[in-house]
Amino acid sequence: MLEGLRPVFQTTGPVVIYPASGSGAWEAAIVNTFSPGDRVLMFETGHFSNLWCDIAQRHGLLVEYVPGNWRRGVSPAEVEQRLAQDTNHTFKAVMVVHNETSTGVTSRVAEVRRSMDRVRHPALLMVDTISSLASMDYRHDEWGVDVTVAGSQKGLMLPPGLSFNAISEKALAATKTAKLPRYYWDWQEMLKPNRAGFFPYTPATNLIWGLRESLLMLHEEGLSNVFRRHDRHAEAARAAVHAWGLEVVCEDPREYSSSLTAVFMPEGHDADRLREFILDNFDMSLGTGLAKLAGKVFRIGHLGHFNDLMLAGTLSGVEMGLRLAGIPHQPGGVTAALNSLVARRQGSSVNSVAEGVLS
Amino acid sequence: MLEGLRPVFQTTGPVVIYPASGSGAWEAAIVNTFSPGDRVLMFETGHFSNLWCDIAQRHGLLVEYVPGNWRRGVSPAEVEQRLAQDTNHTFKAVMVVHNETSTGVTSRVAEVRRSMDRVRHPALLMVDTISSLASMDYRHDEWGVDVTVAGSQKGLMLPPGLSFNAISEKALAATKTAKLPRYYWDWQEMLKPNRAGFFPYTPATNLIWGLRESLLMLHEEGLSNVFRRHDRHAEAARAAVHAWGLEVVCEDPREYSSSLTAVFMPEGHDADRLREFILDNFDMSLGTGLAKLAGKVFRIGHLGHFNDLMLAGTLSGVEMGLRLAGIPHQPGGVTAALNSLVARRQGSSVNSVAEGVLS
Amino acid sequence: MLEGLRPVFQTTGPVVIYPASGSGAWEAAIVNTFSPGDRVLMFETGHFSNLWCDIAQRHGLLVEYVPGNWRRGVSPAEVEQRLAQDTNHTFKAVMVVHNETSTGVTSRVAEVRRSMDRVRHPALLMVDTISSLASMDYRHDEWGVDVTVAGSQKGLMLPPGLSFNAISEKALAATKTAKLPRYYWDWQEMLKPNRAGFFPYTPATNLIWGLRESLLMLHEEGLSNVFRRHDRHAEAARAAVHAWGLEVVCEDPREYSSSLTAVFMPEGHDADRLREFILDNFDMSLGTGLAKLAGKVFRIGHLGHFNDLMLAGTLSGVEMGLRLAGIPHQPGGVTAALNSLVARRQGSSVNSVAEGVLS
Amino acid sequence: MLEGLRPVFQTTGPVVIYPASGSGAWEAAIVNTFSPGDRVLMFETGHFSNLWCDIAQRHGLLVEYVPGNWRRGVSPAEVEQRLAQDTNHTFKAVMVVHNETSTGVTSRVAEVRRSMDRVRHPALLMVDTISSLASMDYRHDEWGVDVTVAGSQKGLMLPPGLSFNAISEKALAATKTAKLPRYYWDWQEMLKPNRAGFFPYTPATNLIWGLRESLLMLHEEGLSNVFRRHDRHAEAARAAVHAWGLEVVCEDPREYSSSLTAVFMPEGHDADRLREFILDNFDMSLGTGLAKLAGKVFRIGHLGHFNDLMLAGTLSGVEMGLRLAGIPHQPGGVTAALNSLVARRQGSSVNSVAEGVLS
Repeated sequence: MLEGLRPVFQTTGPVVIYPASGSGAWEAAIVNTFSPGDRVLMFETGHFSNLWCDIAQRHGLLVEYVPGNWRRGVSPAEVEQRLAQDTNHTFKAVMVVHNETSTGVTSRVAEVRRSMDRVRHPALLMVDTISSLASMDYRHDEWGVDVTVAGSQKGLMLPPGLSFNAISEKALAATKTAKLPRYYWDWQEMLKPNRAGFFPYTPATNLIWGLRESLLMLHEEGLSNVFRRHDRHAEAARAAVHAWGLEVVCEDPREYSSSLTAVFMPEGHDADRLREFILDNFDMSLGTGLAKLAGKVFRIGHLGHFNDLMLAGTLSGVEMGLRLAGIPHQPGGVTAALNSLVARRQGSSVNSVAEGVLS
Repeated sequence: MLEGLRPVFQTTGPVVIYPASGSGAWEAAIVNTFSPGDRVLMFETGHFSNLWCDIAQRHGLLVEYVPGNWRRGVSPAEVEQRLAQDTNHTFKAVMVVHNETSTGVTSRVAEVRRSMDRVRHPALLMVDTISSLASMDYRHDEWGVDVTVAGSQKGLMLPPGLSFNAISEKALAATKTAKLPRYYWDWQEMLKPNRAGFFPYTPATNLIWGLRESLLMLHEEGLSNVFRRHDRHAEAARAAVHAWGLEVVCEDPREYSSSLTAVFMPEGHDADRLREFILDNFDMSLGTGLAKLAGKVFRIGHLGHFNDLMLAGTLSGVEMGLRLAGIPHQPGGVTAALNSLVARRQGSSVNSVAEGVLS
Repeated sequence: MLEGLRPVFQTTGPVVIYPASGSGAWEAAIVNTFSPGDRVLMFETGHFSNLWCDIAQRHGLLVEYVPGNWRRGVSPAEVEQRLAQDTNHTFKAVMVVHNETSTGVTSRVAEVRRSMDRVRHPALLMVDTISSLASMDYRHDEWGVDVTVAGSQKGLMLPPGLSFNAISEKALAATKTAKLPRYYWDWQEMLKPNRAGFFPYTPATNLIWGLRESLLMLHEEGLSNVFRRHDRHAEAARAAVHAWGLEVVCEDPREYSSSLTAVFMPEGHDADRLREFILDNFDMSLGTGLAKLAGKVFRIGHLGHFNDLMLAGTLSGVEMGLRLAGIPHQPGGVTAALNSLVARRQGSSVNSVAEGVLS
Repeated sequence: MLEGLRPVFQTTGPVVIYPASGSGAWEAAIVNTFSPGDRVLMFETGHFSNLWCDIAQRHGLLVEYVPGNWRRGVSPAEVEQRLAQDTNHTFKAVMVVHNETSTGVTSRVAEVRRSMDRVRHPALLMVDTISSLASMDYRHDEWGVDVTVAGSQKGLMLPPGLSFNAISEKALAATKTAKLPRYYWDWQEMLKPNRAGFFPYTPATNLIWGLRESLLMLHEEGLSNVFRRHDRHAEAARAAVHAWGLEVVCEDPREYSSSLTAVFMPEGHDADRLREFILDNFDMSLGTGLAKLAGKVFRIGHLGHFNDLMLAGTLSGVEMGLRLAGIPHQPGGVTAALNSLVARRQGSSVNSVAEGVLS
């Protein structure tokens, strides 16, 4: 399983499996590499960057937290500028949420890496991929990521209860000087027995059996096809939103998420009332607006085990909900989405052969 | 379980459970009530009436088989006329398929009963409800049905492997003179141990556990709500078909099925090519045209465990398939279906309290 | 699946799968091959031969039913004598229960065949293997059996709901003149679609998926190892019974069953009281005495998915039950069984390589 | 669920659920209550006390680790003496493993509490019940425990992946001054959302559904009956071990575990060879000797979902394994165990009414 996970992270290095949910893997990234008082550079991209920042601070890190409007990802230019000024290399890490689950905005990790390289800053690059891994293209090695944080319950299509760290050589080396106390999350404690085919403590066996099936499914479809499928669904979802005359939270098309689409409600209308309406009538639960987006935003998930017709059903539920709840909008969202899906299929050779990143 | 099944058939009489698929329950209805040479009146409504007729003939019955165009149900007037002429009461039974799975056409069983009553004909009334029971309103007692034939894998939402006979007093009495050999299907052999809480031979235990869950689900929703749900889906499916400019097989609105909708392809286009196209592209398998409708018809199922958004996804798959396969049609089917679903919900009080035939 | 079943029956001919329990496959053997008034030769070996005889009679067969004491299998000598006298070949079939589930007595089918051959009698040989197939050695082709009847819920380790007929050329030929009415059980109706990869009516799909797993398990262990395992368990069970000073129902060691062991209670003690006692105290349900053995016999099953330690637990439950219920017996049954199991393992090379009838 | 767990811990205070295995709940107990440099008193009872000690040290605690011979539990007298000498109350906690899974030795927690009370020492009492909870009597409130550590995969009969802390008022108060960094394990972060019906991060939902079933099963049997059942099995297992002439690891009958029994091999015989032998022949996996007991000890588990006949099967496997592997021993272990089980049942009224701690 440990071998089979590597292609999913697009890495040849080690991946560790924790019996824990994603928040544990966030904490693991921190306690293995830092000492209290270390400085790190983080960016406010939404609710989940806030939480990760909070964890860092609780562990005594000094977080330079660049504010954001929750509609944009990390600015590679900003990374470059901040690091350029840090001539003493006080920043130990740049920590980025790849796909902000609260906003449907991604950060361009490859560009962040290039910014870091241009100023030759030695900080570690840590990336949270909890809601992107195995749904969107993500390249741990090629993008020079040092620690990737992931979980079981999104792109890996499992129940929650497993989380992951993919670890670079450089991150492993950082453990030697990292003084934060650790046992459960300790990479060295995990990697030693892993090499011999064991876990240092009782693993979540049932979920690991499930993981075996997930990896087989991803392998069968081919990772590049999986990514293309989610791209197609995201594009169609946005087509629907635009047709309704509503606004997508994400401001920059380069940063659209293929895992989920967050949508602003028209001024004066409560997103949670709409969500409840749709749940009651159509037995479908949309994502709620989190923290400062509460009531203002609803979120449409299209990640993991998902296909064109599930998306069509989902958008139909939203469109009927908007009508029944009397929310001002234009009709035709579902039609726009179907047009988008058809156009994509007409453009590509139907049933194209999987390119098989995994194979 | 035997008790719990009765409200589903809307009967207070006995229901027997066979470890068999629906064809077995067809055979059971015959071998328990007839002797070789008995005359019965049947109507060609489609592929399944053909099969039942074939079984009757193989058991030595003389079937008066009234031809039909596969677009209409049993004509109550025809029943009345044929029975009126049968002054010697040579017909031992009238045998009707309630919902023709091959055509999406229902027969008006209550009216058939009234026809029989008007001419005071003593024939038994036997009805196949394999694809209607627990999806469409069906009343064994009120409609004076003598033998109802049903199966597990449609409205009861189970895997195939169980089938049923609901039996009237009059049908039970007929067993005394019925000379067809029988053991496995023998009602008397089944009812005796049933009364004591046993089966006469090994029952299909796992499916019976599943049946317990099905009955709980139907009870929880309330049978009348279940029927209304399928009516709503059928209406919306027809709205889509009409918007596409295609033709529904069923000619008479009084005979529309709420379990499935069969649709004619435009002249010169092969239904199975479309079906294969949709399966390949959208992982959705539509019903094929059976026997003389092969290639000419595809069938959309909306029975059993099904909701509004599953229907929306289903119709979206058909609409996109029609476009991708280049089948001549008008756009807007899905939109028409959503309009229909919304109109129904606006007309009724949202979240109406279950009336609870089962409760 | 149809291919995979053949090695289990040790046949190269066709096997049909019914969505039905074993009683259905009994009926199928009859309706496919006989006409009302046909004579058949059967032997009273216990409750299940009685039932099969009853089915035959209900279908109008004239059964020559040779009485028995329920402690012996079919006498090959008796077969030979009866058939020798039947110079006009009025017997259309000899029908034998291979393993009498009610008594734990087997019939020596190979010797029955030899008896038939010696007198050159053309009768069909039909064998019920419901509780022996895939637990005990059974050779449809080599033993010249014409129809083998089997079910899913014993040696095939599945829930009940599937049953089987393996069919010889000669039996198939008999269908041409067999006048009993049939549809559900009709071999010809089944074999035609089977050859094309279909079933003539809805199959019990979930059980067929289960069957795939069963066949894989049998293949993995190797059929000859499966048989040896059950032989070992049966021998150990008898060792326990003898040590307790109780009597096994089966009188002739050549006819011991490897699927189950039926045991007489000491005079004046009720088997069902003991069974209830064991169920209440140890949550283990022994087989009851059937029909004329009611109260006099309990039955220990050791077929299907079963291993040495499950047997040890089972016999421990019986031994503790005998003591707690105050049934006169000698101690040491479990010890004797363990001795028997150990002796068998010491005699054979431990972990012997599977010989792989299936492979 | 949070409510339903309390009776299992025999507490009226809060219980928190972590998506983590038991080692995580060990770490949680530490990081919530301590600051680096805090002194704690621990006792070497076996492999698991060693591990917990290691975790404490990795978090900067100064552990006074009282050595032990791995055959005895914590000495209440030793606790009393050590604490009496600690007049400045430098020990912040006494940390005890209730049931040493590596040795089958329990510690008498109630007596440890009394020792602490006699010298009026304010240290917290922390207890690991990973392999005892819900199999052996354990009283968080009555015994004055401050933090109880538990896991899902033993007495709660679930897969691994959930772990628990039950927390006293005093332990909660200690969080205010505890300086160890924490987020994932933070009780305050967990309890606040718990009170509102939420979790602070994604819970391991599937396991929580499983927990609902476990609690229903424990409730149905009654906790006191569960404990009596395991006591009975442990007594019978020891009877077998003694009959074989082997030695139980636990030296003091007051400290026998009812969850498992660890057994010394005769001098010069390798426990792991025996274990492998039994696994190969009987498909049963005994527990291995851990750390310094490797090769010297095998362990028989009789906890969680387990009954008399499973124990009989288990001991039969051991006895046959000893014989086949040529390990010197006396026969008669299984017989002794059955005698013990029968004696217990004869002593108690059979089918005694559950006293129902849970009800």
